[in-house]
Amino acid sequence: MSTFVLVHGSWHDGSAWKAVIQHLEVKGHDCFAPTIAGHGKGVNKNVNHAQCTQSIVDYIIDKDLTDIVLLGHSFAGTIIAKVAEAISDRIRRLIFFNAFVLNDGESLRNNIPPDSQALLDNLARESGNNTVVMPFELWREACLNDADLELAKFSYAQLSPEPYQPLIDKLDLKQFYSLPIPKSYLYCTEDNVLPQGEQWGWHPKMSNRLGLFRLVQMPGSHEVMFSNPIGLAEKIIVAGRD
Amino acid sequence: MSTFVLVHGSWHDGSAWKAVIQHLEVKGHDCFAPTIAGHGKGVNKNVNHAQCTQSIVDYIIDKDLTDIVLLGHSFAGTIIAKVAEAISDRIRRLIFFNAFVLNDGESLRNNIPPDSQALLDNLARESGNNTVVMPFELWREACLNDADLELAKFSYAQLSPEPYQPLIDKLDLKQFYSLPIPKSYLYCTEDNVLPQGEQWGWHPKMSNRLGLFRLVQMPGSHEVMFSNPIGLAEKIIVAGRD
Amino acid sequence: MSTFVLVHGSWHDGSAWKAVIQHLEVKGHDCFAPTIAGHGKGVNKNVNHAQCTQSIVDYIIDKDLTDIVLLGHSFAGTIIAKVAEAISDRIRRLIFFNAFVLNDGESLRNNIPPDSQALLDNLARESGNNTVVMPFELWREACLNDADLELAKFSYAQLSPEPYQPLIDKLDLKQFYSLPIPKSYLYCTEDNVLPQGEQWGWHPKMSNRLGLFRLVQMPGSHEVMFSNPIGLAEKIIVAGRD
Repeated sequence: MSTFVLVHGSWHDGSAWKAVIQHLEVKGHDCFAPTIAGHGKGVNKNVNHAQCTQSIVDYIIDKDLTDIVLLGHSFAGTIIAKVAEAISDRIRRLIFFNAFVLNDGESLRNNIPPDSQALLDNLARESGNNTVVMPFELWREACLNDADLELAKFSYAQLSPEPYQPLIDKLDLKQFYSLPIPKSYLYCTEDNVLPQGEQWGWHPKMSNRLGLFRLVQMPGSHEVMFSNPIGLAEKIIVAGRD
Repeated sequence: MSTFVLVHGSWHDGSAWKAVIQHLEVKGHDCFAPTIAGHGKGVNKNVNHAQCTQSIVDYIIDKDLTDIVLLGHSFAGTIIAKVAEAISDRIRRLIFFNAFVLNDGESLRNNIPPDSQALLDNLARESGNNTVVMPFELWREACLNDADLELAKFSYAQLSPEPYQPLIDKLDLKQFYSLPIPKSYLYCTEDNVLPQGEQWGWHPKMSNRLGLFRLVQMPGSHEVMFSNPIGLAEKIIVAGRD
Repeated sequence: MSTFVLVHGSWHDGSAWKAVIQHLEVKGHDCFAPTIAGHGKGVNKNVNHAQCTQSIVDYIIDKDLTDIVLLGHSFAGTIIAKVAEAISDRIRRLIFFNAFVLNDGESLRNNIPPDSQALLDNLARESGNNTVVMPFELWREACLNDADLELAKFSYAQLSPEPYQPLIDKLDLKQFYSLPIPKSYLYCTEDNVLPQGEQWGWHPKMSNRLGLFRLVQMPGSHEVMFSNPIGLAEKIIVAGRD
C-alpha cells in the first residue's frame, strides 16, 4: 500500500481529489490532498512560485510523511519538481499527471501557445490583483470535454481565481534533473487544454523531458478527476506502484 | 434532445448513416441524412463544391430545420463549413467527424499527400467524366481496417464514383473562421486514410484550425459508421450536446 | 483459419509467445514460434543479421509452411522484411508488431535515439562478447510499464543477452519495398521503448514507410505478450485476416 500526496492544478484546491481519494482509500492507500498557498476560495492570492512550493513542503514535513508517491496535476507538475528538490529523501516516486515538466530556467507561461499567453496576460491585467478567472466556455469545451454540461457547471462552481505570479516565475530545475527518483507520466488522451501535437501537447513533448519514465495512459479530459474519478484512481495506482 | 443533420463523405450517400441513425433515434434524437448533390448511384456527377453546399442548404431550408447539430464526415467537413456560412442562424453546433478543416483559400486536394493527389488525379483523368472510383484495396486496408473482409465488401458495394471537382475547388472560408458557432472534432484513432502524424493526419493538424473546440475520441477506422455504428452514435451524442 | 509464424524481438526467444499461442490455437489457428539464431539461453551469440534471417527462412522451409501470416515484434521487423525477400511466395501477409521498419540501407541502430545508441554501444563493449544485457530498470519502466513488479521480474528472468551485430548491420531492403505482399502494423499505444512522437516513435514514423498498410491499435506496452496475451492474440487475428 502506498502513501499518496496529490497536488491539485491551477484554479483548484485540495478538495478536487475528493472522489479519487475515496476510491484510493477503498483500495487501502493513504491519501493526502494539501491546498497550495494562494489557492482555494477566500484566501490571499498574493503568492509566488517559491511560496506555493514551500506550502507543500511544509505540509509534508508537518505531517512527517515519508516514502510518499507525490503526484502533481497540470500546474502542480512545476510544484512537485521543486518539492522533490527540497525533500527528495521523503519521495518514493513522482507522478506527473497531465502536468507541466519545465526545462531548467523556464516558466509555465513559456510552455503554452502565444494565444493562451495573451489570454492569460489580459485576464491577469484586467483582474486588478494579478489573478486569472477561468472562462466558463474554456472550462466546458477544453477542460471537461468528456463531461455533460451539468458536471461542467458543478465543477466550475468549485474553482477560484488563479494567482498569476507562480505561472510566470522562471524555475531553476538543475537539481531536479539530477535526482534519481523514479518518475511516471500519467496522460489522459483527450486532454485538449494544450493543443495536442508535437509543438505544445503534454505528451510526448513534456513527458520526454523526464528521461526514463513510466508512461501510463487512459481516456479522459484534463479534469478526469471529475468525469471519471474511479478510472483515474485505478491508473494512479498503476503509475504509482514500484 | 437534439436535431442532427449528418452529412456523408466522398463516395457515400445519405444511406451510410442508416445504422447510426437507428441508434440516435432510439435515444430520442431527430436525425436527417441528406445526400449531397452529385453523390449516390445513378445521378449526374457533374457538380462543383458550391452546388454540393447549396444542396445541403436547400435541404435544411426546405425542411425548415432549426437549432441543428450539423455533422460532416471526411469531405463533408468542407461542406458544413460553407453551409455554416450560409445559414449560421440555424446551427447550434458543428461536428467535424474525421473531417477536413480547410484553411481559407485551400481545396481538399491541398490537404492530402502528394502520392494521394497523384492517385486521385490519375483516376479522375482515366474516368472520362472527372470522377474517382474508390480502389477496393484502399477501402479494405485504409478505410475499414477495423472490419472483416465481409463487411468491407458489403459496404464497398454501396459506394459510387466521387465527382472530383468539389475536391479541387478552392474555398473562401474567411466568414467561416469568424463564426461564433461552437465546434467539436470527433476523431477515430485508427483512421489511416490520411497518414497519421503531424504532417498530414486529421488530428491535431486539422482539428487545431478550429480554435477552441471540443475534442471527442473513440477507437475506430474512417468508416466506423459501418464497423461500430452504435459506438459512433454514442460519441456523436457526446460531441453534439451543449 | 490462418497459419501464424510469430518472430520474437531482441532478448527473447520463441517461448515469449507461449500465452499468445495458447489463445490463437483455441481460436483455431496454427502457430509457430521459431527462435532466431543467436537468441535464447546458452547458445552461441556470435551471429550477424543475415544468419538471423537465414535461421527463420530455414525453419519455414524445413516445416514446409505456406500461405503464412508472418509477424515480427520489435527487432524482428528487420527479420521479417528480409525473410519476405527470400521466400515471398510462402507469405500471405506481414504483420509488423511495434516493430522496426528500416529504410533501405539502414540498421536498427540508425533508428534509435543517440542516447540509446550510446547505452547499447557501451553495454556491448563492456560485455566482452559483443552482446547487450537488458538493464532491469529499463525493462520495468519502459518495456513493461503496464505490468506489476512481479510480472516484470518473472518475464525478465526469461531474457538472455542480445547479440549486437544484427542491430548494427545495415540492410539492403530494395527488394522488400517492391514486394506486393499485404502488410499490417499492430501498434500498442503505451509502448515507450522508443520515445513516442514524430522523431523516434514506432508509429507513424516507421509504419508509414510501409506505404499502404492496415493499422491496428490496442492499449499496452512493448511487452504486451506478457501483460495482456489474450488481448494481443485478438488483435493479431484482426491484423492477420484478409
